[in-house]
Amino acid sequence: MRNPVELSKAYRLLNHGPTVIVSAAHGGRRNAMAAAWAMPLDFAPPKVAVVLDKSTFTRTLIEGAGTFALNVPCRALADATFALGSTSGRDEADKIGHLGLATFDATAIDAPLLEGCVAWLECRLLPEPHVQQAYDLFLGEVVAAQADARVFTDGRWHFGPGQDELRTLHHIAGGAFFTVGDALQARLPR
Amino acid sequence: MRNPVELSKAYRLLNHGPTVIVSAAHGGRRNAMAAAWAMPLDFAPPKVAVVLDKSTFTRTLIEGAGTFALNVPCRALADATFALGSTSGRDEADKIGHLGLATFDATAIDAPLLEGCVAWLECRLLPEPHVQQAYDLFLGEVVAAQADARVFTDGRWHFGPGQDELRTLHHIAGGAFFTVGDALQARLPR
Repeated sequence: MRNPVELSKAYRLLNHGPTVIVSAAHGGRRNAMAAAWAMPLDFAPPKVAVVLDKSTFTRTLIEGAGTFALNVPCRALADATFALGSTSGRDEADKIGHLGLATFDATAIDAPLLEGCVAWLECRLLPEPHVQQAYDLFLGEVVAAQADARVFTDGRWHFGPGQDELRTLHHIAGGAFFTVGDALQARLPR
Repeated sequence: MRNPVELSKAYRLLNHGPTVIVSAAHGGRRNAMAAAWAMPLDFAPPKVAVVLDKSTFTRTLIEGAGTFALNVPCRALADATFALGSTSGRDEADKIGHLGLATFDATAIDAPLLEGCVAWLECRLLPEPHVQQAYDLFLGEVVAAQADARVFTDGRWHFGPGQDELRTLHHIAGGAFFTVGDALQARLPR
């Protein structure tokens, strides 16, 4: 079940550094790509930063639409995440459909959200032409967020027994990923 | 044992999204702070991005020195990482020393590197006043990198049996961290 995430807690979806899938739609085309380089940028209003290479078709769509989504994939989607990061949608009619991936509509923007992910952040591009051009760095404000209620509730991720397939992915290189591991609570010195 | 990491592989140290400790020195002062919002920005030359709140003393030192280091802490340093993220060095003579943390000298810049971490990236600030001011976003070029040879060799992290204390930290909130979990290899469709 997908639950809305309050915007003040949306940064928590990315705080632990998962690999994301960036999706966008514009002018009758849609696409999605994997991106290991994404992070929160602010709490309230929540903002994010993501690196999008100039060669990517998703970047072209985002520049046209002014909106994008960050989908947080899990272990069950590892092969799909690798595939989305290994081929370009520029030369294909519909990379998402070709890979057999199901999508659903975003709530606040026009972008495909990927079924089977465990969180989704819908973003409005914050145009910063200099850093986009010089560093391929794109900034966005999160305008809506959802998460899979099995593993994210009350603003916290929690992966329990039997939920290994729902653990987030953290890219190493070449389609090798870590999944997120155990949680611990640090203590402050007396 | 600390091994140099070739610059073309330095992005791998952050690719899986660990929480970092940012350290810097300037004008006879030094400091370090925890930062969950850091990521690679480019491969070669390697670049990084990190969010530094205006209230932090480490940011003041970085603006003065023009250099900073990203230290990658591990489970054994969870309490220290939480402490470094919970107190300011602005009002203290030496937060690092007060917490009983040992340091060693960086190789290419003037910044304290923290003993017990599992990787270290030495960076030269890439001045971008607009995004620093508007978004607290700091960009840097990595000029030297090292890693703990027990868990990072040939450009790859590998956490084996008995190395749980060396696993990287991924901040959830309020001093709760995930440690990085198991690795898997994704497969492309035929």
